[in-house]
Parts: sequence; structure tokens; C-alpha cells
Amino acid sequence: MSSYQAPINDMTFNLFDVWQLDKYWQSNEQLQDLIEADTAKAILEEAAKICEQQIAPFAAEADQRGAQLADGKVSLPEHYHAAYQSLVEGGWTSLSGDPEYGGMGMPKALSMMVDEMLCSADIAFSLYPGLTAGACVALLQHADDTTKQTYLPKLYSGEWSGTMCLTESHAGSDLGIMRTTAKPNADGSYALNGSKIFITAGEHDLTSNIIHLVLAKLPDAPAGSRGISLFLVPKHHLDASGEPGERNNVTVGSIEHKMGINGSATCVLNFDDAKGYLIGEPHRGLSCMFTMMNYERLSMGSQGLGAAERAYQNALAYAKERLQGRIKEQNANKAEPIIGHPDVQRMLLNIKAMNEAGRTFATWVAALLDKSKYDNCVVSGQRANLLTPIAKAFMTDQGFDACVTAQQVFGGHGYVKEWGMEQLVRDVRIAQIYEGTNGIQAADFMLRKVAADKGAVLFSLLDDIIAELTDKPHVAAAPLLTAVTDLQSLTSRLLQQESPILAGAACDFLALVSYILYGYMWYKNLQALDNSKHSSHFTGAKTHTANWYFSRILPRASGISAILNTDSAMLYNLAPEGY
Amino acid sequence: MSSYQAPINDMTFNLFDVWQLDKYWQSNEQLQDLIEADTAKAILEEAAKICEQQIAPFAAEADQRGAQLADGKVSLPEHYHAAYQSLVEGGWTSLSGDPEYGGMGMPKALSMMVDEMLCSADIAFSLYPGLTAGACVALLQHADDTTKQTYLPKLYSGEWSGTMCLTESHAGSDLGIMRTTAKPNADGSYALNGSKIFITAGEHDLTSNIIHLVLAKLPDAPAGSRGISLFLVPKHHLDASGEPGERNNVTVGSIEHKMGINGSATCVLNFDDAKGYLIGEPHRGLSCMFTMMNYERLSMGSQGLGAAERAYQNALAYAKERLQGRIKEQNANKAEPIIGHPDVQRMLLNIKAMNEAGRTFATWVAALLDKSKYDNCVVSGQRANLLTPIAKAFMTDQGFDACVTAQQVFGGHGYVKEWGMEQLVRDVRIAQIYEGTNGIQAADFMLRKVAADKGAVLFSLLDDIIAELTDKPHVAAAPLLTAVTDLQSLTSRLLQQESPILAGAACDFLALVSYILYGYMWYKNLQALDNSKHSSHFTGAKTHTANWYFSRILPRASGISAILNTDSAMLYNLAPEGY
Repeated sequence: MSSYQAPINDMTFNLFDVWQLDKYWQSNEQLQDLIEADTAKAILEEAAKICEQQIAPFAAEADQRGAQLADGKVSLPEHYHAAYQSLVEGGWTSLSGDPEYGGMGMPKALSMMVDEMLCSADIAFSLYPGLTAGACVALLQHADDTTKQTYLPKLYSGEWSGTMCLTESHAGSDLGIMRTTAKPNADGSYALNGSKIFITAGEHDLTSNIIHLVLAKLPDAPAGSRGISLFLVPKHHLDASGEPGERNNVTVGSIEHKMGINGSATCVLNFDDAKGYLIGEPHRGLSCMFTMMNYERLSMGSQGLGAAERAYQNALAYAKERLQGRIKEQNANKAEPIIGHPDVQRMLLNIKAMNEAGRTFATWVAALLDKSKYDNCVVSGQRANLLTPIAKAFMTDQGFDACVTAQQVFGGHGYVKEWGMEQLVRDVRIAQIYEGTNGIQAADFMLRKVAADKGAVLFSLLDDIIAELTDKPHVAAAPLLTAVTDLQSLTSRLLQQESPILAGAACDFLALVSYILYGYMWYKNLQALDNSKHSSHFTGAKTHTANWYFSRILPRASGISAILNTDSAMLYNLAPEGY
Repeated sequence: MSSYQAPINDMTFNLFDVWQLDKYWQSNEQLQDLIEADTAKAILEEAAKICEQQIAPFAAEADQRGAQLADGKVSLPEHYHAAYQSLVEGGWTSLSGDPEYGGMGMPKALSMMVDEMLCSADIAFSLYPGLTAGACVALLQHADDTTKQTYLPKLYSGEWSGTMCLTESHAGSDLGIMRTTAKPNADGSYALNGSKIFITAGEHDLTSNIIHLVLAKLPDAPAGSRGISLFLVPKHHLDASGEPGERNNVTVGSIEHKMGINGSATCVLNFDDAKGYLIGEPHRGLSCMFTMMNYERLSMGSQGLGAAERAYQNALAYAKERLQGRIKEQNANKAEPIIGHPDVQRMLLNIKAMNEAGRTFATWVAALLDKSKYDNCVVSGQRANLLTPIAKAFMTDQGFDACVTAQQVFGGHGYVKEWGMEQLVRDVRIAQIYEGTNGIQAADFMLRKVAADKGAVLFSLLDDIIAELTDKPHVAAAPLLTAVTDLQSLTSRLLQQESPILAGAACDFLALVSYILYGYMWYKNLQALDNSKHSSHFTGAKTHTANWYFSRILPRASGISAILNTDSAMLYNLAPEGY
């Protein structure tokens, strides 16, 4: 069984020392009365208790038992009920919700850290509150006030939960070809017909109602993705008092048997004249849903980081305890802890360096979202938009690699279920796939976030970073300045290419930008250290890990640049039958 | 369910066009009567039938059911019995065995390809004949003639099977600290006491006897790894007629629940005054066992390649069939096969380029082993020795990456069990861990295979490659010459460092050498194409994939070089408590 302790020290270091968000919160009218440093720390500590004590210790049990379907009902692992109740009672499900409808209104930079903890504890469990939070964001932005009054308080309170129903068996990345239909009823509602797959939390026994947000096509819908509308379809219709009453015609056809996140019910949902309500404008459903998708995409990053953090903690503990081989000791019968072996140090430092940069990155993106939301800051919004696909794709790719590496530290013990490391690998793997595969993220980044504005937002960010590195240089971060400058010229050259070439370069380009921005994160960590009063242990470990990043990880960027600098136009002309 | 078709075309291309082994076989006195091109091709085709029809289609069933322990007996998936019988009846278990004891005496270059097919079909199943073959190699080299006469014919015939019992719960990579003891009995045999873990095929119902090769310490054993002896411990004692009789005191304590290879029984074996027989000299057991380990390590590469080949075939088929998104088509309701998307092409070509280079590499190493064995060629032996850790570590790392990438091509469908892709990922993961973790392989490569002779064997190989590239240049392989030259100077610089630095650099160095040698493999493929008469489809696909390797994969080497060129001495001074 793998253990877990929330990294509150590093979280508060990121909030207050690296990004100085306590000062930002104080400067903002809406936030200044809601949150300050001590409250934030207390919130993290309380969340940590639930995650460490009520969820993390039972993740292996949840994996083994999984969600089960019988007689059209999905039952979940026993302790999910108690853990969910704790979230509800503590108000955790309303953490980031709008205060107007009963939410606590906490900034994303803080709620994101609670997300990370939940994901460390059990990604499968985290999806139940996670999907609800996403549904609330979509409703808050696109539903009318009556709908919000009806649904949001119950969703924020955790009494009900939410889903997003997009995928059909033939329509995943390409939602435009979906077949689910919505026909107007006489009463202004709609009759939905169709079948959706891969619906996370689509059916379960944690809440008294489930509010499905469903994409479907109206009879007069134009072809493709511009003809999709968004509907709210409750599992139970509401009675006169607003409580769950009669069952709607939404049924679970089956649940998937998966590689991991077995505690999460991944459902096939059938809509047979299910009654639904239009949310937002007709045919604008996809953009409504993308509000929610973007929120989820940031949370995906937390899944990668959360699993990787737990993997690291356990690999580190194992490396300190496991006696194998001699490093300095000459006694042939006396083995030493494997952490003395340079290759084990390499594995641990690689994970640590990526995890901590990832946490700084996630906090950065969340803070940009907060500044965009609370201050209408346009530049922050643009930058959050630019960085979202990186938070989803790079953080989950790195999270998976970190879990695999941590499993490797355990040798054979990493492969057996008992130690819990293989579950982390299986669970986190999904984060690279769902909510838009990482390939889709890369295409989004390259084509929509960079090429579409001729690189304007990216170049402006890189200019600011260069200015900062020049104004306040840090000796350890010297290689970074060169890397950023090289990235500028490579991007300019790349943007002269045509879009199939860009699409082929997208994954590498996303990784290249990410490694460089993670370098910037380490620069920010080092700068924050200089100004803070942390223990010599904390400062020493941070400094060592930063040096590791700059000399052993950042150079990977040069390999990726070398790939992107080759002429690959002719390589995308292979016909399907040419393989 | 994932399907599988043995890549016989590429196998014969490697045997006869790339390495021209038919000519070598004809030139060798021992081999010329045993094997020639047509026989070899027929052998591959027959092996393919069993793997494609009797094993591959049921791998998912084997995964689901797994090996089961009840009342001290291990039962295996039903179809394993029929498949194993087919191997026995076809003489497949004796393929590489010594003809003096009933083996078929086939060269390694050929038997290795059968290994690859078995691993594509089901890694878990392949371990039963695989471990036996390894045990036979150790017995053939180290046992006396009576022992060989007694055991080898029954092992080659598949009537009995073999194991290797090394690991104890506290002693894995560090076997020197093992505790199992062997006390001399009056009759010249030994009484073994101790407990071994992670014993593949340690107990099962496929064969009437199991011959365990066990490492243990004699009473007068010196401390550490120089005090380990090798013993043969049969599950059943042999009666007067040489048939399995009374049960020996070896019992299975439990079997592991693992991430994958569930059809393989991974046992805890308890030895309670079990009767065993010394094999080889006292205290020289570890080097005897390494004969077997080296054999197994090459087969590990086949596990990586085998899984990756099957993963590729299925990802390619899926990419051609799955309709999603538009590439050229303008009709918004008409999706096109995803293989048209540049990023899907990138994934497929990355896998294909690494798989085919891997097959050429495996054939090369096997041919070197054959030339060392049949011709006593010293240089071939040294080079096989140098390349073995690469075959184990790089081929399994790449095999894992390939399976993960192929799973990614499937999107969400890759994560559900139904499609079989997630099983390939879970199964192949073990190959990076067992038989010496890939970190141990890298240390072996860097310290024992390269630094110990001051790089002599590596430099001689690189000199030969440079001479070949200069004598017979190929335009597409131009970047390779530079890469090899750079590797020479980097290696020289590196070898001036002290051994902790070398140990820390080992993994990166192994990867760097591997990427360059895989480039050499693609050069050999291109050269062979020029001289052969393959279809234009085959030639076109090979050429395209070679170009892909040189422009989109080989540049990774420059990123690794950049890492190895940084000064990292100070990075290995972090105390365990400093993380």
C-alpha cells in the first residue's frame, strides 16, 4: 500500500513566495474579504486530513472492487460514501462555486491545490466532485437565472452531482458527427434520443440526483460542430418542491472495464425520449461545453501531478529503506540504502524536478485565470488560454512518466499490486487520453493558440520572460536565457510552414515550450527562495533540484529543437496503404 | 481483442538481406547441414501458425483468468495446455537445444524470431518455454555429463520445465546478501533451506516435473556474491527409471498479484530441506547463473519488440478504420480515417521505425552470438557482450513506449480492456524490470562493458561503422556519420570521469549509444534494400521509415549528448535526508 502526505509546504511556498498570491488577493475587492494567507493554509490543512486519512489509504481497495453495475444500478466502493459525505459536510464541493448560488468563491489557485490532493489520494474518487464542479462552471456561464437557482445550490452542496455527455461510439475527438437528437416538446422542453459512451460518473449511488449536461442536435441543426446544442437532462425530474421525483428516461447500458480508475463508473448512457432543457443558444452547445472542458483540462494537470507526487513520496521512502548493494561500505554482507546509487538519485531527482516545476506551473495558470476572472485582465486571460493545453498535456505526460519511473525504483516490487505503485501508473494513464487526447491538445496549442495569432501571445510572454531574466539574472538559470531566445527564432521559422507541417510538429513543439517554461518555473522558485525564510533543508533541496533541472533536464529541449529544425515536409506524404 | 500476424517478411529480410545469414550458415560446418534459407522460412511460418492461431487470440482470456493457486497447486488458463502441447509436439521447445541431448541445434538468429512471435502472442505464456530454454543453457555449460543426460532431453522435449531461483525478499539486484543455505548430505547431495520470491513458472500444471536451478550458500561460503553456489532441485525426485517420483520439499507459498503477465505464475518458493545437486564449482554459482541470465536478457529484448509489434499492427489497423475529423474532405458530416492526421502518422512512424530497427538489432546480436559459438570468433563474442545490455534495456524501454503510443492512437478505446491495447502496456512493463532492471543494465554497460576496457570494444565497433559509412555512403544516412564521430569524442571525455559520475550517466549513455546504433540499423536496412528484390511497397515503406528515423528520431541523440556534456559531478552529493 502506498502512503500519502499532502505537500503543504511546497503548496504554500508556491502560493505566497513564488507567486505572492496573498498580496494579489488583498488587492482584489472580491477576494480580499474571502481569503488571506492563514485561511488558505488552514483550508489546505483541512483538505489534507480528508485526503490523507479517508481516501488515500483505501485507494487500493477501491481499485480492486471497482464500480459495479447490477440491475441498472451502479454501486461504488463502500468507503466512497463516507469520504464523499465528509466532502459534503465540510463544504468542499462548493469550494470554487459562485457565492451568489451558495459557493465559497475561493480562487482557482487554491481550489486547484485541493484538486491535486484529491488526485493524489484517488483519481477515480476525485472525478465525482470534479465532474460536478465542471458542470457548475458551464451552467454558471450559460444557463438562465432560474436554472441556476434551481440547480447550482444543490450541485455546490454536493447533494446532487453532474456529468458531461459528449462522446458517442463513433464520435470522440470529432463531435461534429454525433447522432444524438433533441426534438422540441410542446412544453418548451426537448426529447433527447441517442447513446453516449465514456460518461464518467454517469450513474452511481453517491447522490440523490445526477444532472447530465448533454450535447445533441436540434432538427434544424447545420452539419458539423456548429450544429450542436447543450441540454440539461436530470436523472430524476424535479417535483413541485424542487426535489428529485420521477425517473427520467436516461438509463445506464453498461460500464467499461478499464486499465485503471476502476472506482470511477465509466458509463454507456442511453437517452430514450429523455426530457431535457436547452442551455444557452441553439447550436452553440460546443462552445458552452468548452467552458467546462477548459476547466476540466486544468484539473487534468492536477491528476498528472497528484499521482506523480504520491509516486515520488513512496519511491523516496522506499529508496531510503531498501538495502541493496554497496556504495561506500566495504562489508560484502552489509548492503546500503539504494538511494546511495547514482542511478536511483537520477530517477528521484528527475521526478522531483518535474513535479515541483509542475506545481509552480499549475499555480501560475490558476493565478492567471483568477486575474482574468476577478480583474478582467485581458493579458492574463490570453496567457491562461495559451498555457491550458500545456497544463493538460505536458503535466499528464510528465505525471505518467514520473509514476513509471517511481515504479522502476521499486524493482520487482513495483510490479506487484501489494505496493500500490502499479495502480498509480494504471490510474494516471487515462489523464493523457480523456478530455481531449494529448495529441488534440498539442494541435490546439500549435494551431489555435500559437499559429492563429501568428505567435503574438507566445512572443509577448517570451519577451517578458527574457526581460525578467535579464533584469534579475540568476546564475543557475543562465542556460534558460539561451533556450528562450532560441525558442523565439525557432517559433518564427516554424510559423512560416503550412498547417499540415505544423500539425505534425505540434507534439514536439508543445514539449519544447513546456521544458523551457518549466525552466522558467525553476527560475521563479530560485528567486522566491532568495526572498523567503524557509528552512535550510527546504532551501537546500530546492536549490539542488533547480540545478538538476538546468543541467540534466533542460538540455532535452535541444534534442527537440533538433527534431523541429529538420525539414519534415516530405514525411507526411505517406498514403495509408504505404505503411 | 487485438489481433496478430507474424511479420515474416521483415524477419526474412533481416535474416537474408540485411545480415545475409543464409550465406553464413552455409559457410559453417556445424550449421550447413542443419539449416538453410528455405527451411528457416518454413520454420518461421510454422511457428507463426501456432502463435497466431493458438496463443494470440486467447491472451485476453489468459490475462483475465490468470494463474491461480489453490491447495498448493497452481492451475493455468485452460488453453495454455493445448498451446503448450502444440509446442511440444512440434519440437519447438528443443529449437535451440544442443543436438547431442536431443535439441534441434538451430542458430540463435532464428530461434530469437520465434521468441519474438511467442512474445507478441502472449508474453506470460512465452515464459514457460522461455525459462526452460534458459535453464538448459546453464546446465549445458556447467553440469556434468550424467546430469546433462538425465535432465536435458526431458527439458528439450518439453516434458519437464525449468526455473531460475535467485531473488529473495531482501535480495534482488544484490544477490550477495541472500540467505538460502545448502548443507551437504551424506549421499553427496545437499539440503537446501530458504525462501525465494518472484520465481517465474515456479509451480504450474503444464509439465510432469519442474527443474529448479537455485542459488544458495554453502556452509563455508565466503561473504558476498563470491560465496554463492548453484544447485539443481527437482520438484519431484527421479525414480530408478528416471521418471518423476516422490515429491521434493519445495512448496509454493503464494503467487503474486501483478500489474500484468497474469498467466505467468510468479511464485514464492519455500525450500525445507529440499534435496539438491551442486552444478559447477562451489561458490561459482553466480557466474553459472549469469550464463542463463545473459541468454534471458536477449530474450527480454524480444518481449519488448514482440509486444510493440502487436501494438503497432493494431494501432495501424485502427488508424485506417477509425473515422474522425476532416483532413481534405470538406463535408462536415463526413469524417476521414485518422491515419490522415499528421500527429497519428507521427505516432505510427515512431513505433514502426523503432520496431524495425529493433528487429535488425536483435538479429545482429543473435548473429554475433552464433558466430562466437560456432566459429569461436572472439570479436563477435566481445561485441555480443557489449550489446546485450542494450538489447535488454533499450529494446524493452522502446517496447514499452511503443505500446503506450499505440494505446494512445486508440484514444479512449485504448484504455478499456476490450481492445487489448492496455494489456500490452501492462504485460510489457515487466520486461524493463526483471532479469536485472534497466538501471542495472545501464550500469553494466557503462562500467563493465565500456569503462572496464577503456572503451576498447566500443571504439573498435564505432571505427568499423565509420569505415563502412565512409566506404559505402548512403545519402539518407548522412547525419549518422556525424553522430558516430560525436559519440567517439563524448565517450573519450566521459571515460576520464570517476565511477560515481559514470554510474549517474549510465542510463543516458546507454540510450545515446542505442539511438546511434539504431541509426546504423536503418543504414543497414537501406543498404540491403538496394541489393534485394522486394516489392515496391516494401521498399517504399522501408525508405520512408528510414528517412523518418534519420530526421525525426536520431536528433534525440543530440539532446542526450547535451545532458552528458554538462558537468554533473556536484549533483550526486545529495544526502538521503536532503530530498
